[in-house]
Amino acid sequence: MAKKARTAITPTREDDFPLWFQQVVKEADMAENSPVRGCMIIKPYGYALWENMQGIFDGMIKALDVQNAYFPLLIPLDFIAKEAAHIDGFAKECAVVTHHRLEDDGTGKLIPAGKLEEPYVIRPTSETIIGDSMARWVQSYRDLPLKLNQWCNVMRWEMRTRLFLRTSEFLWQEGHNCFATKQEARDDALLMQESYRKFVEDYLALPVITGEKTTDERFPGADATFTIEAMMQDGKALQAGTSHDLGQNFSKSSEIKFQGRDGEEHYAYTTSWGISTRLIGGMIMVHGDDDGMIMPPRVAPQQVTIIPIVKGDTDEAALFAYVDGIAAQLRAQGIRVHADKREETTPNKMWGCIKKGVPLRIEIGGREMEAGELTHVRRDIGRDSKETCSIDAFLGQVEALLEDIQTSMYTKAKAFMDANIHDKASLDDMRSFFANEENTGFCKIDMKFWGSDEFNAICDEFSLTPRCMPLADGGKTVLVGKAY
Amino acid sequence: MAKKARTAITPTREDDFPLWFQQVVKEADMAENSPVRGCMIIKPYGYALWENMQGIFDGMIKALDVQNAYFPLLIPLDFIAKEAAHIDGFAKECAVVTHHRLEDDGTGKLIPAGKLEEPYVIRPTSETIIGDSMARWVQSYRDLPLKLNQWCNVMRWEMRTRLFLRTSEFLWQEGHNCFATKQEARDDALLMQESYRKFVEDYLALPVITGEKTTDERFPGADATFTIEAMMQDGKALQAGTSHDLGQNFSKSSEIKFQGRDGEEHYAYTTSWGISTRLIGGMIMVHGDDDGMIMPPRVAPQQVTIIPIVKGDTDEAALFAYVDGIAAQLRAQGIRVHADKREETTPNKMWGCIKKGVPLRIEIGGREMEAGELTHVRRDIGRDSKETCSIDAFLGQVEALLEDIQTSMYTKAKAFMDANIHDKASLDDMRSFFANEENTGFCKIDMKFWGSDEFNAICDEFSLTPRCMPLADGGKTVLVGKAY
Repeated sequence: MAKKARTAITPTREDDFPLWFQQVVKEADMAENSPVRGCMIIKPYGYALWENMQGIFDGMIKALDVQNAYFPLLIPLDFIAKEAAHIDGFAKECAVVTHHRLEDDGTGKLIPAGKLEEPYVIRPTSETIIGDSMARWVQSYRDLPLKLNQWCNVMRWEMRTRLFLRTSEFLWQEGHNCFATKQEARDDALLMQESYRKFVEDYLALPVITGEKTTDERFPGADATFTIEAMMQDGKALQAGTSHDLGQNFSKSSEIKFQGRDGEEHYAYTTSWGISTRLIGGMIMVHGDDDGMIMPPRVAPQQVTIIPIVKGDTDEAALFAYVDGIAAQLRAQGIRVHADKREETTPNKMWGCIKKGVPLRIEIGGREMEAGELTHVRRDIGRDSKETCSIDAFLGQVEALLEDIQTSMYTKAKAFMDANIHDKASLDDMRSFFANEENTGFCKIDMKFWGSDEFNAICDEFSLTPRCMPLADGGKTVLVGKAY
Repeated sequence: MAKKARTAITPTREDDFPLWFQQVVKEADMAENSPVRGCMIIKPYGYALWENMQGIFDGMIKALDVQNAYFPLLIPLDFIAKEAAHIDGFAKECAVVTHHRLEDDGTGKLIPAGKLEEPYVIRPTSETIIGDSMARWVQSYRDLPLKLNQWCNVMRWEMRTRLFLRTSEFLWQEGHNCFATKQEARDDALLMQESYRKFVEDYLALPVITGEKTTDERFPGADATFTIEAMMQDGKALQAGTSHDLGQNFSKSSEIKFQGRDGEEHYAYTTSWGISTRLIGGMIMVHGDDDGMIMPPRVAPQQVTIIPIVKGDTDEAALFAYVDGIAAQLRAQGIRVHADKREETTPNKMWGCIKKGVPLRIEIGGREMEAGELTHVRRDIGRDSKETCSIDAFLGQVEALLEDIQTSMYTKAKAFMDANIHDKASLDDMRSFFANEENTGFCKIDMKFWGSDEFNAICDEFSLTPRCMPLADGGKTVLVGKAY
């Protein structure tokens, strides 16, 4: 048996993709499980990525006149009960607050006390409580459009959890927009979907299919759900962001009414839209390799890491000063740079940097220092991209290098996704495709097959779901695949 | 009876300070009560202020090598129980999650189901759960110092709530730092206090007294609590930020141990430090006047608002274009500017702008447009500062004007605070002072009086608390006053 190349992550993607994912999260030091069932701890390196993502997307929505605000964490039960479809979709598994005090039970053990007259749930999403405010804030056509967003934590009691992908508590943004007309709401849902596409493709280097969800996959209470679907390296889909045209469903249950220019009272039309820390899971499963994470430069917490290589005869103080000087120059160019001067071995520093997926690694030893040079390596290419050059030469090309990494990552992921979308002319063809366990990816078939008994049977048999009706095909086709 | 000048806020500060406060929050459109007991809704204008505050302070702590992260919302009961003093201080009134599902009770009503084996509380603060992580993350002296912070929501079940000042849920940052030595932890607690002082004085224009809390006012489980105390216009104190030297108390209950350079195992020393949306309440009560809020320019959501004055014969399109041009020029200079082109009357726009406390208001009518001019008014001074000048002249002085407003606001508040701190030589003097209801502010007395029966009796009688031992007096004095 041929000996495999050693990899930093065990197992490899091929050997066990789900376990590989867990190990990448761990080795990149991004998050870990907490003592609280199903809840994760987002560690500084993972959180710095989320902050960069937040910063960019927040700027994009503010440019669309969305205003940030903050609504209560707790939702009264009768709010949840207002929208029937919504209950079925959400209310089932959520954290319920029933008491407001702890007491010593006499043996030193703390027990809940102060029972609430009406329990609350921790928000699984905030349509109902934001709708309640909108009903007060929207009185006239002059108050419209009203576009609100909040960055917050939400909670859904999940039975099987996985870091970033499915956790009981997660961080997200939830946008809630309100309009005078049906058309504006539909246009808005599509605009937010397009904003998501732009954000994940241009910044996270995640290629996606933009589409509409089939009716069975819609958000509970929506007239239409638009989605961006990404493909992981195991061929499974990840729903990366959704926007919902809620029509008048929520405005009717929340009584969001306004006086129109015609002097009459009308129900408003609303949308909601969200992306979450789940996207980080998607980035790992699209970009990572058997050596760990690969960060897209535009959102990477560290774009460049400098590793000073201290050997027996190295003047450490001089080398650290040299490294600090280069770091300062890079910082002045707006590059996020980290100089790793820890008490730690060089191989550990290098592998740490690789596993964290820092786009560019710089190595500087005594020899480079004397020559006024540095050695740089691209994370996406590895060893073959290793190059030694003068500091000035590097400073002159670093932005272009980072942009090239960004583009290459997107191009590679896009080629993979395109190669794994398979047009199928019949349900038999689709069945044969998924029956072969070697095959991965999505099948695309005519919408006329969707919802038939045979279609549903195939989905059940192979754990498939309709991912979306791609916008590019005008609703005539549907993509089918396994999903996270 | 002399007729009072009309004010935008009813009642005035003099007539009813607490009600005036509520009205300012409402009229400035910053926040409102929610349908959830004790929880507020932070409206876009209030949230934009919080975002500006966050952005500045986040930059300050990152410069101190603090790393942001995110820990679970829920805390297991046995974590809370770990630190005895902490239980007494916090665990009493908090939201308890006991169930993880809702079910229809058969009559269509939703009821809690899926009882949890062990309940959770919604974090009132996160020392215990972050301590649990620190115990895993800190193994060696090489892992120290470790400085973590999270921006998040917390919940304490409050019986009497007031917008921003005391709500069951509020937003804050909580920092948790960990060190190898006692001295480093003490230095850090003082450094974070100083960071708070700098932040609130330089950016929020809130003058504060830096001091140490007396033992009875310490954070539960702290060796020392450092505070910044601000004085409201009614003479009451607002604790504006605290940092705690937790010594080894939390490291012992959470088992945060590390191997030192000496090869031995040691307990670490920790600190925690926090500021919250409460600061916004403080800004209102320090800066607001009988016409509403006055925003410090450095954090104001809008630094300049332009109001186009449309009269019968005004060419509205041309005026709006003129206004947009000026707004674009201001924006290019980095000024946060808002052009109010709503369908709304000019007086309503003007009073809206005044009540929101926008530092500079610009009015432009047809006449100004023809002359290439504008009229500007400072919110802190009002009418008397009204001036008409050319656009270029305004663009040339706008930054200086905003800085002058910032400085004036601080100076005015500082003079007020200084004038209302009264040195008292004896407890009798202190009693006489507070016995006269006309008197407001803090009394400063020698620490030798603190804790005596007489001292405590006076505090009880007049609802006073020791605010702090000012650092400037080296612990020899204590400030006493009423507090929010």
